[in-house]
Amino acid sequence: MNYRMIAQLLGKVLCTIAAVLLLPAVICLIYRESPLPFLVVTLAMALCGAILLRFKPRMQKIYAAEGFVVVGLSWILLSLFGALPFVLSGDIPNYIDAVFETVSGFTTTGASNLPDIEALSRGAVFWRSLTHFLGGMGVLVFIMAVLPMSGSRSIHIMRAEVPGPIVGKLVPSARKTAILLYGIYIALTFLEAILLICGGMSAFDSVIHAFGTAGTGGFSSRALSIGYYDSAYIDIVITVFMILFGVNFNLYYMILLGKGLEALKSEELRWYLGIVFFAGITIALNLGNTYGGFVSNLRYSFFQVASIISTTGFGTADFSLWPTYSKWVLLLLMFIGACAGSTGGGIKISRILILGKSIRLELRKQLRPHSVNLERLEGRAINEATIHSALVFFACYFFLLFLGTLIVSTDGFDLLSTFTGVISCLSNIGPGLDMTGPMGSYVMFSPLSKIVMSLCMLLGRLEIFPILMLFSPRVWKN
Amino acid sequence: MNYRMIAQLLGKVLCTIAAVLLLPAVICLIYRESPLPFLVVTLAMALCGAILLRFKPRMQKIYAAEGFVVVGLSWILLSLFGALPFVLSGDIPNYIDAVFETVSGFTTTGASNLPDIEALSRGAVFWRSLTHFLGGMGVLVFIMAVLPMSGSRSIHIMRAEVPGPIVGKLVPSARKTAILLYGIYIALTFLEAILLICGGMSAFDSVIHAFGTAGTGGFSSRALSIGYYDSAYIDIVITVFMILFGVNFNLYYMILLGKGLEALKSEELRWYLGIVFFAGITIALNLGNTYGGFVSNLRYSFFQVASIISTTGFGTADFSLWPTYSKWVLLLLMFIGACAGSTGGGIKISRILILGKSIRLELRKQLRPHSVNLERLEGRAINEATIHSALVFFACYFFLLFLGTLIVSTDGFDLLSTFTGVISCLSNIGPGLDMTGPMGSYVMFSPLSKIVMSLCMLLGRLEIFPILMLFSPRVWKN
Repeated sequence: MNYRMIAQLLGKVLCTIAAVLLLPAVICLIYRESPLPFLVVTLAMALCGAILLRFKPRMQKIYAAEGFVVVGLSWILLSLFGALPFVLSGDIPNYIDAVFETVSGFTTTGASNLPDIEALSRGAVFWRSLTHFLGGMGVLVFIMAVLPMSGSRSIHIMRAEVPGPIVGKLVPSARKTAILLYGIYIALTFLEAILLICGGMSAFDSVIHAFGTAGTGGFSSRALSIGYYDSAYIDIVITVFMILFGVNFNLYYMILLGKGLEALKSEELRWYLGIVFFAGITIALNLGNTYGGFVSNLRYSFFQVASIISTTGFGTADFSLWPTYSKWVLLLLMFIGACAGSTGGGIKISRILILGKSIRLELRKQLRPHSVNLERLEGRAINEATIHSALVFFACYFFLLFLGTLIVSTDGFDLLSTFTGVISCLSNIGPGLDMTGPMGSYVMFSPLSKIVMSLCMLLGRLEIFPILMLFSPRVWKN
Repeated sequence: MNYRMIAQLLGKVLCTIAAVLLLPAVICLIYRESPLPFLVVTLAMALCGAILLRFKPRMQKIYAAEGFVVVGLSWILLSLFGALPFVLSGDIPNYIDAVFETVSGFTTTGASNLPDIEALSRGAVFWRSLTHFLGGMGVLVFIMAVLPMSGSRSIHIMRAEVPGPIVGKLVPSARKTAILLYGIYIALTFLEAILLICGGMSAFDSVIHAFGTAGTGGFSSRALSIGYYDSAYIDIVITVFMILFGVNFNLYYMILLGKGLEALKSEELRWYLGIVFFAGITIALNLGNTYGGFVSNLRYSFFQVASIISTTGFGTADFSLWPTYSKWVLLLLMFIGACAGSTGGGIKISRILILGKSIRLELRKQLRPHSVNLERLEGRAINEATIHSALVFFACYFFLLFLGTLIVSTDGFDLLSTFTGVISCLSNIGPGLDMTGPMGSYVMFSPLSKIVMSLCMLLGRLEIFPILMLFSPRVWKN
């Protein structure tokens, strides 16, 4: 284990995000709030970062293990530091509550444990949503985009941070890939904010909700989330952008290269849109006369389907009150999640496709044990290691879900709220059902449960292994 | 596909079980009820069986595919025929309800969709519980024990019917293995019935409950299940036997051979007993003062833990009313299930162990991609194909659970009752929570849902593939 290299990379992370913390300080000045909480934390992070940067690595090379550890530790450190401004400003006096909220932000979960969101200072609201934006595309991908880094090092880090069963670079250089990804990301976010302003939303709220959509996070500046605006235009804009941010960003790059038609042939994209369509239509049917009939139901059903499958978690209605079929479909979407290489969470469509194909393969193998079979994804044969990893990921996901729920269940809140709350954290959605539902909050849980749920969010966002490895003694042995 | 051989094996199955149907006819005579419903069905089955037996196979050899198809079709045919006496006697007038009840019996689920169990005729109660006894150790294993069959044929059938990730014969001959298994099975059942009679239970009820325990089924002759007797002695006897029938029967054979100490070293057994112990103790703690304190809680917590992990489903208390932690532990036990090679259902302890080890392997592989790693189960290295099959089984289990719940959710009953009801069917337990809980029933579900749940029970009992294959067009092509 190349400890010195890990220290140096962590130093870079801390210094870069210390600089980013000046943005909410500027917002504080605009809204005549004290920027001190942010400035103090900027200073503290920069100081710690500078100390870590003094460790000069003897070897430049790192391996997969170091990639996982750097990513895992970065996210934990940033959450611990990122929570401090909330405590110092008095917005979230309890540190564990502040860490929960910050982890929820960085991991783009959007689960809140605050009693009253609208009582927060402007600076705190901005920083809370900015963590979504940073976490969505990846903190380390951001650092790759702004700082020079050797190619062999960055690919291990990219693999550990970018979600999905197979990670490829768009262009040969990892840095250029990172810049491209962030370019597309910022452009789409900007476009959404402009469209929201056109719909009559204030500039501040538009930025907040654009951050929330872009990172597929779901923090809102309003207690009623998007339901506050009660505007069909705003609902439709956000529905479309939630779907867009759940798509693999590689496809946008292909469109930029003029290969738009090829991008549309993506198997994962077709399944993603197909599932959205099926879920939206059948839920609208199942809702009966809830919103005045099938056609008016569509606005609410598609908004919620897009919000859950992209793992954003915005709400325009309390789906805890919807009929059982609708609730179950939304729960299934929580498991499935968005496309690989998007800013969304969950198990990911491509992984579900690989699982489905592996079941078909197994059926054939049981029938004819000696025949050789192949399955394809996106036109290419899936190799056995990829299938195996997807299967193990699936098993891990449920093991963690069951273990997390076991610990949180000791708080004694009802089973459905507890179980769906933990699913929601692990898949980085935000709302669960009932007490943890769109009109609920995570405020009532014990500190232990909040720590477990924060871990679940980190495990979900980093796709389990980078966090799990930090607990493995093997990683720390040389 | 050797169709003639399949037809002949199905003929043997029908004729044998036709003969077994004479047993409930005798019970009818003893209790002065009409044996006609059973005699008519015996005749019908024998006739159909005789027709099928006229297909003389041209080749004697069968392969894995035929093994799966014979087992899958046998179970479906027996359920369809076995439901007829209930309809003819008027005990269950609706045929779909009768099929649900019969599938629930053969698969040793024990989920009932009857409004009033105590109103059934003695003959119907006996036949209902006899299906547990037949289904527990396996219908085809029973036929192997009573009829001569070639060794190469029987091993494929045994693999398809006996639960667990790895199936081995106890002795070189499959027939002798089947006789041994049934010998141990009958002896244990007999012993339990005697002990229950000693506790003051009537002879008839003792046999019914011994059948229910042996097959880990859970049908009772009483609406309140074992809670009716309110006897600590009976609770303890049944708790012990439920645990015993959840153990791999190979271990009993080892004990018969005088290798008792070796049997106790079984990794699966230790985990099984460890989980029972952990769950029983922590639930008793979680129950607080429900039954008058920790020590008196133990009787109820261990009974319910043994009942659920062995997938029996007997009840002495309404655990739907227990605190969240207790309910969640019981739900986890529903997934886990009993040991491989027992009469219990669920995912099976050994498969869970393989999954846990495969996660450890994956962590190591991600850390050091080129290192060679091994994991052991019961002292032997687990090969990759076994790990792969266990992983695919796990994925299949959840796919089916999610799909089943999706269809049943259209009935509109509450989410927890629906979801836990489908789990309970798929793991062959019996009770779920709330409406499908120990004091509830499956009576309110629509015919479509009952068919889906019956399929889930069959899929669960036969470990998915034999039933899934019947739906694959590849199987029916030559």
